[in-house]
Amino acid sequence: MMDGQADLDRMFHALSDRSRRGMIDRLGRGPASVTELAAPLAVALPTVMKHLQVLEESGLVFSEKSGRVRTYRLQQDALAAVERWVEQRKIQWTTTFDRLDHFLANETETLPE
Amino acid sequence: MMDGQADLDRMFHALSDRSRRGMIDRLGRGPASVTELAAPLAVALPTVMKHLQVLEESGLVFSEKSGRVRTYRLQQDALAAVERWVEQRKIQWTTTFDRLDHFLANETETLPE
Repeated sequence: MMDGQADLDRMFHALSDRSRRGMIDRLGRGPASVTELAAPLAVALPTVMKHLQVLEESGLVFSEKSGRVRTYRLQQDALAAVERWVEQRKIQWTTTFDRLDHFLANETETLPE
Repeated sequence: MMDGQADLDRMFHALSDRSRRGMIDRLGRGPASVTELAAPLAVALPTVMKHLQVLEESGLVFSEKSGRVRTYRLQQDALAAVERWVEQRKIQWTTTFDRLDHFLANETETLPE
């Protein structure tokens, strides 16, 4: 059983860097090797490897090695957990505001004339 | 003009800690003081203040001081930028998969008999 909070910690952390978000966008267009993922970035290879490790640990991407080439792919439903988290907040906040509206409407109705 | 990438870096970083996500949930139910926000957390006050600073810098929450009490509130449309980022990826990925489906369907149709 995975810890949902730890999963979200790792996922939001993985998304908090524009180079890693760029890699996710690249993988959204299809699988890619480390070299292909490193190409648009002006950073050293160890930095690229570190970014890919963070992305893999977050569960957003996975990799397979065939011969000497490691290929990275986007996990199916990669952003589903993030999307669900945002959705739940929006529903809660709408409910809170609806209750407040209802409360204020009732207050107005019962004002003495 | 704000830098969208820097905004997203800060916003995702703010969300990458469960204590900060807990504060966002608390503020979703209404404004709160530092003391109220600190109450459910088993951490020292300087840590609480640091979390609130990260949340304010990300634009997810804002605060006002009245007398000696600082009150924190959720920014309206707090998660809109995150939601938009996820939505855009989902649209792109669906398009990519649709194109692949279309390509594969055409390939099958033109196979030699």
